[in-house]
Amino acid sequence: MSQKTLPLGHGELLELAYQLPTPFHLYDEKAIVEQARSLKKLFSWAPGFCNYYAVKACPNPAILKLLAAEGFGADCSSLPELILSKASGISGSKIMFTSNDTPSEEFKAAYEMGAIINLDDITHIQALEDALGTVPETICFRYNPGPDRTGNAIIGNPVEAKYGVTSSQIVDCYKIMKGKGVKHFGLHTMVASNELDGSYIVETARMLFELCVRIKQEAGVTIEFIDMGGGIGIPYRLDQEPMDLAQVSKGMQALYESIIVPAGLAPLQIVFECGRVITGPYGYLVTKVLHVTEKYKQYVGVDASMANLMRPALYGSYHHITVLGKAHEEADHLYDVTGSLCENNDKFAIDRKLPKVDKGDVLVIHDTGAHGHSMGFNYNAKLRSAEYLLRRDGSVVMIRRAQTYDDYVATLRFDGALVEV
Amino acid sequence: MSQKTLPLGHGELLELAYQLPTPFHLYDEKAIVEQARSLKKLFSWAPGFCNYYAVKACPNPAILKLLAAEGFGADCSSLPELILSKASGISGSKIMFTSNDTPSEEFKAAYEMGAIINLDDITHIQALEDALGTVPETICFRYNPGPDRTGNAIIGNPVEAKYGVTSSQIVDCYKIMKGKGVKHFGLHTMVASNELDGSYIVETARMLFELCVRIKQEAGVTIEFIDMGGGIGIPYRLDQEPMDLAQVSKGMQALYESIIVPAGLAPLQIVFECGRVITGPYGYLVTKVLHVTEKYKQYVGVDASMANLMRPALYGSYHHITVLGKAHEEADHLYDVTGSLCENNDKFAIDRKLPKVDKGDVLVIHDTGAHGHSMGFNYNAKLRSAEYLLRRDGSVVMIRRAQTYDDYVATLRFDGALVEV
Repeated sequence: MSQKTLPLGHGELLELAYQLPTPFHLYDEKAIVEQARSLKKLFSWAPGFCNYYAVKACPNPAILKLLAAEGFGADCSSLPELILSKASGISGSKIMFTSNDTPSEEFKAAYEMGAIINLDDITHIQALEDALGTVPETICFRYNPGPDRTGNAIIGNPVEAKYGVTSSQIVDCYKIMKGKGVKHFGLHTMVASNELDGSYIVETARMLFELCVRIKQEAGVTIEFIDMGGGIGIPYRLDQEPMDLAQVSKGMQALYESIIVPAGLAPLQIVFECGRVITGPYGYLVTKVLHVTEKYKQYVGVDASMANLMRPALYGSYHHITVLGKAHEEADHLYDVTGSLCENNDKFAIDRKLPKVDKGDVLVIHDTGAHGHSMGFNYNAKLRSAEYLLRRDGSVVMIRRAQTYDDYVATLRFDGALVEV
Repeated sequence: MSQKTLPLGHGELLELAYQLPTPFHLYDEKAIVEQARSLKKLFSWAPGFCNYYAVKACPNPAILKLLAAEGFGADCSSLPELILSKASGISGSKIMFTSNDTPSEEFKAAYEMGAIINLDDITHIQALEDALGTVPETICFRYNPGPDRTGNAIIGNPVEAKYGVTSSQIVDCYKIMKGKGVKHFGLHTMVASNELDGSYIVETARMLFELCVRIKQEAGVTIEFIDMGGGIGIPYRLDQEPMDLAQVSKGMQALYESIIVPAGLAPLQIVFECGRVITGPYGYLVTKVLHVTEKYKQYVGVDASMANLMRPALYGSYHHITVLGKAHEEADHLYDVTGSLCENNDKFAIDRKLPKVDKGDVLVIHDTGAHGHSMGFNYNAKLRSAEYLLRRDGSVVMIRRAQTYDDYVATLRFDGALVEV
């Protein structure tokens, strides 16, 4: 049973919702920083532990800067993510460039920034060399275990995944790169997404530790760091338990002692690429009720839409909803909570029990701190909302402004456009 | 069996793909205009026939302007769509404002522009009056037949749909509005999406015609126009047949003669809100092959991604793919065609038979003229592509520029931002 907390009291949030244009995302600085510190502390045994925050989860520079101050790196997959991370104070080897199907100019930019390049395929060795005219001093490979491992339900079967180097290619990758003069080596994998079972993560560590031994034996290459990827889930539902990260850390430490140390591979740096577990629970989508309607079902229509949070519509994901000021009322009404997009799947909740909702009520949609604002689109010409940060001193500052019509038509305004908009 | 055509020869398209930055969407002006004219001609029997193009399908003003010149209107669901349509030369009663969960300022803007307002709910009567301080001269209601009708597979069961006024509310809606002094009335429904069976559309006409009779009898209100909504599909797959629109028109005409004329309700204007069937088949996503890789499966990695076309990833939709210059080669290779987004569902095709594909090949992804570019997002900091129009004179003009990093960070740049990007 997990708890859904709010970063401020109901009254304070209501005040905020009537003071700022809704909808908006609100992030809790204190909670994010505490979570970052907690993760670091749990893995203090691990040599050079670092979490490369998955930028796509919440690509806001104010959030990235907070994490940079905690020693976090950035996991980037595109050139704009690289530039944004650098602007947020994360650079050099604090950036992991884990892309797939990579354009050569992105390899080049990552190299020039001193980022660690994590190659997705054996053919990317040549593509990288063609792009750079050389090879970097440090290289990492993304490993896809294929039939040797079942992926978790969300990321799917590794055999069907477009990512990574296969079991039969992985040793050759290191041999080739060693031959080309690469000096430092990493090994990466990502076989889970939004996983809550810690033992799955521990098993991933075992897989990578054992692979380090095999690579040492077969290629004569010492892996200096493993990148466990992300995939640590959060309890979106009240009846879910958060992953026991302390147990994960202990389990990994025991395997490290039993596999890495005896193989003479210590110290082996351990890094993660977690996004969701760092910011997910500490973001809140605040939205106002525009209409309560009775059709064949009862609907609560809010001013947010898929443009602000796509997970429920795309994946049928559950996001908990709190009706501000009605904490003590019984949740005895059954509603579909809908956005205004002209798509029937624009629903934040289906058949959700809530207290009686009235026009003007303010809803808080929980767990939007990862893959929330960042997945938003402009379909139906919906404008994306602002983001705010609740600072540790209690102040609330805007960290992204809301889009305007001018933003929406920006790419339609250029010299020679057929229509002036 | 449908045919997949190209707007230019393979050689010309290849030249274009190496001359312009890929990926890009290319729209065929001649084909779009011909399709618009063909629809008008088929329904020339129908009083005041008009298609209000669903702007969300392809919200490019150059496309809207083409359609405006053919007498089309615009179906809008948000304030930016209203503004964009007006800028494209579509205004007044040529705009249908079919929104749901509508903010009051959008009701106001639609009214001030003289758009036809299509109300989604009985409670929106009050919301509209509150917003305007009056009622418009013309009003339309969106009807949801609920259990009286099964929706098609894509739009789902009407009982589960968030849209429209129920069967038991619909007559009261007109009574109330008549009492408030509204002079002209319309009736709208939308119970299908991407439907290929024409008889389904004809049955929808029957439903609305019969409802016009009931509304006349029970509310004493003469419906002056019916809005059939959209929902006419296109054959994405080679083994699908396009809807026989001539048959639909004939079927609707016969019902008009047998229901509307005897009831003394003629002339009744008939309008549609088709988007997909007007532009869908005449848009093409042109993308270059960056990598061909062999993992546990064979992958063709292209420079387009979900940011350019989300339908395959979101709905598992089929989009036909042509490898330029290889029309005469046997499709004897099995590939997953993938984009570069860091999401495993970023695949344009799974297990697709294609001729042997090589790095540097150019693929054309078909049927992207509706819900293609318009659904794109910036997830993973992917930038959205340009759009081009192939003019009737054979020239190719840019009608939307590609996004840049500056576009991506536009909402992060404001006075007082915590981080300079």
